[in-house]
Amino acid sequence: MRMIILMWAIAASVPALADEGMWTFDNFPSGAVRRAYGVDVTPGWLDHVRLSTLRLTNCSAAFVSPNGLILTNHHCMESCLGELSSKDNSLLERGFSAADRGAERRCATQLADVLVGMDNITAAVSKASAGLGDEAANDARKKTLTALEQACERQSAKAKSGPLKCQAVTLYEGGQYFLYKYKRYDDLRLVFAPESGIAAFGGDPDNFQFPRWSLDFLLLRAYEHGKPASTPHYLQINFAGPQAGELVFVAGHPGSTARRETAAELEFERDVLLPTTLLRASELRGGYIEFGRVNQADQELVQGPLNNLENGIKVRRKLLDALHDDSLMARKRDEESALRAYAKPSGADPWQQIESASARERGIYLPYTFIEGAAAFNSILFRYARLLLRGADERLKPNTDRLREYTDAALPRIEQQLFARVPIYPEVESMTLSFSLQRMREWLGPDDPLVRSLLKGESPDSLATRLVAETKLDDAAVRKQLWDGGKAAVDASRDPMIELARSLDGASRSIRKQFEDQVEAPIAAASERIAALRFKAYGTGAYPDATFTLRLNYGKVQGWMENGVLVAPFTYLDRAFERATGSAPFKIPDSWVRVKDQLDMRTPFCIATSNDIVGGNSGSPLIDAQGKIVGIMFDGNIYSIAGAFWFDDAKNRAIALHPAIIREALDKVYGARSLLMELGAL
Amino acid sequence: MRMIILMWAIAASVPALADEGMWTFDNFPSGAVRRAYGVDVTPGWLDHVRLSTLRLTNCSAAFVSPNGLILTNHHCMESCLGELSSKDNSLLERGFSAADRGAERRCATQLADVLVGMDNITAAVSKASAGLGDEAANDARKKTLTALEQACERQSAKAKSGPLKCQAVTLYEGGQYFLYKYKRYDDLRLVFAPESGIAAFGGDPDNFQFPRWSLDFLLLRAYEHGKPASTPHYLQINFAGPQAGELVFVAGHPGSTARRETAAELEFERDVLLPTTLLRASELRGGYIEFGRVNQADQELVQGPLNNLENGIKVRRKLLDALHDDSLMARKRDEESALRAYAKPSGADPWQQIESASARERGIYLPYTFIEGAAAFNSILFRYARLLLRGADERLKPNTDRLREYTDAALPRIEQQLFARVPIYPEVESMTLSFSLQRMREWLGPDDPLVRSLLKGESPDSLATRLVAETKLDDAAVRKQLWDGGKAAVDASRDPMIELARSLDGASRSIRKQFEDQVEAPIAAASERIAALRFKAYGTGAYPDATFTLRLNYGKVQGWMENGVLVAPFTYLDRAFERATGSAPFKIPDSWVRVKDQLDMRTPFCIATSNDIVGGNSGSPLIDAQGKIVGIMFDGNIYSIAGAFWFDDAKNRAIALHPAIIREALDKVYGARSLLMELGAL
Repeated sequence: MRMIILMWAIAASVPALADEGMWTFDNFPSGAVRRAYGVDVTPGWLDHVRLSTLRLTNCSAAFVSPNGLILTNHHCMESCLGELSSKDNSLLERGFSAADRGAERRCATQLADVLVGMDNITAAVSKASAGLGDEAANDARKKTLTALEQACERQSAKAKSGPLKCQAVTLYEGGQYFLYKYKRYDDLRLVFAPESGIAAFGGDPDNFQFPRWSLDFLLLRAYEHGKPASTPHYLQINFAGPQAGELVFVAGHPGSTARRETAAELEFERDVLLPTTLLRASELRGGYIEFGRVNQADQELVQGPLNNLENGIKVRRKLLDALHDDSLMARKRDEESALRAYAKPSGADPWQQIESASARERGIYLPYTFIEGAAAFNSILFRYARLLLRGADERLKPNTDRLREYTDAALPRIEQQLFARVPIYPEVESMTLSFSLQRMREWLGPDDPLVRSLLKGESPDSLATRLVAETKLDDAAVRKQLWDGGKAAVDASRDPMIELARSLDGASRSIRKQFEDQVEAPIAAASERIAALRFKAYGTGAYPDATFTLRLNYGKVQGWMENGVLVAPFTYLDRAFERATGSAPFKIPDSWVRVKDQLDMRTPFCIATSNDIVGGNSGSPLIDAQGKIVGIMFDGNIYSIAGAFWFDDAKNRAIALHPAIIREALDKVYGARSLLMELGAL
Repeated sequence: MRMIILMWAIAASVPALADEGMWTFDNFPSGAVRRAYGVDVTPGWLDHVRLSTLRLTNCSAAFVSPNGLILTNHHCMESCLGELSSKDNSLLERGFSAADRGAERRCATQLADVLVGMDNITAAVSKASAGLGDEAANDARKKTLTALEQACERQSAKAKSGPLKCQAVTLYEGGQYFLYKYKRYDDLRLVFAPESGIAAFGGDPDNFQFPRWSLDFLLLRAYEHGKPASTPHYLQINFAGPQAGELVFVAGHPGSTARRETAAELEFERDVLLPTTLLRASELRGGYIEFGRVNQADQELVQGPLNNLENGIKVRRKLLDALHDDSLMARKRDEESALRAYAKPSGADPWQQIESASARERGIYLPYTFIEGAAAFNSILFRYARLLLRGADERLKPNTDRLREYTDAALPRIEQQLFARVPIYPEVESMTLSFSLQRMREWLGPDDPLVRSLLKGESPDSLATRLVAETKLDDAAVRKQLWDGGKAAVDASRDPMIELARSLDGASRSIRKQFEDQVEAPIAAASERIAALRFKAYGTGAYPDATFTLRLNYGKVQGWMENGVLVAPFTYLDRAFERATGSAPFKIPDSWVRVKDQLDMRTPFCIATSNDIVGGNSGSPLIDAQGKIVGIMFDGNIYSIAGAFWFDDAKNRAIALHPAIIREALDKVYGARSLLMELGAL
């Protein structure tokens, strides 16, 4: 719990933080690496790694050939595999191997972004909100970010390097604002996926566990103009993998951490957010399992969402455990007192302001989550309906006046989602929508006016079944027609899912406004002030909380001590066969069993490292000092989950797939010679 | 939060506690009632109420006629209604009304006990454990309780008043021990039950809510020797009900409170017990709902267990909320410090001893809960298997050496359970067992040796399905044969459910021993010492935590202020019809709709009172100063749940069914004239 000890000390100098930290590429501590490991991380090395690393919808990835080949995790592409499946052909179950490039299949809802530039826009943002009250400042800040994104995209569209996606990023809870510029690939095609039986070997029971044996990799290819993209920046794979104790780096996109959150914010998570989310998720888990229990075909329909849900349950369960450590919460409070005493904020106490905003958040959390957060409408079809409805309204407004998720910069992603022809299973939709409507009624109460007006005397299950049966939004052509037709078309629509979204939109926007003004705005203002106090106390040699933007960290190949016993940092293939049973999720696929005798049982399988990563880093390349890939991150051990709140260097370990097992699999199990050649393995 | 403030004060005199308290009948504060309300509670009044009140399996009840007629809640008899149902005739759904006494139907697994005597055995128990170490004292205490129960039952069997059931009761966490003597009725027959549509109107959404409209009553009759029991002690019903502000009493059996638990014990509940239990319960809830979602017949199979589960979820959710109040936990710690400073315990600090034991409990909680607690085996058939297996082993031992749940005093209840011919639905059993085996594998881990030996490579679902399909324990005759055949018969059995129970019994007993020695024993010893310190500091004018034994409390008919608005203490029939929709759980049954025009819409329906009750009090009579029934308790408001930890007299309210609506229903909806005559309403 190194971070905690540091906070007590209130030192103004740069702390020597062992291997902790999710560093932005503009502020990587090359000096610390040189001092600790004697290795030079040059600007050229940093640029090459940055330009070879990708952000996917929920994950990270890397280019691994000059022809746009992308290495990521199998679990990152579960939704794509589901979208390319049908009721009688599950790519999750069977895997996929493109016979040649012509057979590579497009993932209709995936994007990949490469970070090609970063501009510090802190001054412009601060200027826009200077002197305003919290609510006005919050609005002004958002408008400014939208305006800067828009200007950036317009400018880049004219440049000869081609159009870029521009995204404003808040770092250090408002201590810094950046404009990140991405080159976007929107045509990604599936090249190779192993069967989920081996990719997710051990399933939920093994998730966040180590030792581990999950072949969690998958290959995509980026296309441009219908041809494989030319990607001169890519990372070669060193199939020998790393040595124990070796310095290794992870480049990728950690999703979210809360290491700088205040005690009040953490208590909100502990008391409200995590328990309520866990209860709903657990119930839905039971529903999915029962849905698929009796026959295999039904089971395959829900396996993807179930995997995702179970991962979320395990994470949140351990986050709640972490926040139940009272001594930690007390130290957080002490740290705040110490910073307050040292930095002496003028005016209202910002921690107290956050505490008050959190108290207000408790009051509006349920309607905000169920209505505006759509927890009451767990349905892909409802998501389409809201996108269509709000998209029609928002596109009529000036760009800077829109809800942030409907600005011009966001529209291509929305259109990709809406227009994609993906399978939708009405029986699954009815189940999840019925469940979520029931929970809305439970948590908001049957006498809540909005609940009454939504249900109109119908049972949640009957309403859900009817809506799913009658809507036409499962048809991509219908969605495109409504989107292209704009407000007139949407207003004229009598589609019941659109009508549902329409009937609650006024109330929902009003709850959102209340949340933004009473919770978000004061927290943003107070957090900016705390960030300034921190810079004053600790200087600028720290790293910001994760924001699903590109970061780099370093660590080493290393196990840990568990009850006095060393957990070694490598696993090998032989133990996977020893642990196998005949039953999922411990059933090794037949493709492997058939060639078992030809496999080298001492092939390294997985690697534990001390890199500081969290969810979002899945698919990140593990890189050696020479800039070669020596693993692909897919998980952390159970202690890594508390990494949301602090980094425990004694026990927090990241888990990577070893490149040797990728080669062994492609070679001896799947016979994918052309891929091995492209990867430089032959 | 009156109790908390009191604790700070450390007063040696009897506190003036408004209406708080679950008092034993030997220590009821009649003086306080006289001072506050000017009403005399005489010994004769107390005896009559005590002898008219019943304890059921999980609930309370009262005799309401001299011919053994019993008034309790509908929800208390859901299991009986389920046992008397079949796949095509659900008594939950349709209700039940015996045309005459010959048509009254036996509830095969129900018992009713009347408390006829109480002996203080504190001296004998203390003497048995004096001077022993914690583990030996724990064993000696249990042996002594068993021996005293046995002596009591043998003695009563010879007395002309007839045999009694004797049960040792621990009060004040070991500050007192009593032997409670019960007259037992084991032949209870169903007389009348409304449809669950009106008995549980509002279902889970309305549970723990007020205002409320649930006709939650049911009538049973006690039989002796095949004839209606003669019950001279019974409570007449005052169908006019009580007035607002009127003094009212509740006699019944509150199940469990934790008002005297230490901070360490509460933290264990907050961090471990409640979160893990809630997660499992929520998932099972999702499973039940999905199981019954598609067709009504399946839904009826699981409705009873689902209601029960949902009630438990709501309770635990609010308990967790209550324990997340950090200031409360801090005050608990302060109170402990104050008592420590005042009473100056000699030797080891008992709070610290409980803290250490709680830390050990965290280490063994999971195997204890899943294996010995059987959370891994959610199946009636498994419960039979364990009863048969352990019953065979334990009955060979001397009575005082047995596990406490297999002593001679406990055997009649076990035999009733085992021999009852009740319907068992294999599809439900497979589902619940599959679910619980999955969670065992998740929480203990797939590499746990016991998990591996139980699953033997099979999937949890396949194992569950096979066990349920192959066992013969669904046949009551088979169970009786194995029980009567004793150890030889059980040892010879190859029934797969017996084999499962056998395969884990050694490990399970060993986990239990570890729990008893390392957790239960030191907590019992330290709690006894704290109880003595409390008596020293506060005197004996306090009440003990609830233990599902008979208690009496007083309060008044009273609403409360909710966000500045008064919630009135009575509801009326008209609003039930206004709230009705066409869909469960807000669908009023046709039997009511048909006669709607004849009903008096201003009939009082439910009552809120300030009585201090918790789960277990369901079915308790609400009694006026004249000893007449003016309501039947069936719930509390949402604030009552935190009553497990303290009594908040500003908001904690009990909820009763008003006798007027019972009369209106029996008269105009169900035409039950003979019952109305027996109840003195005609």
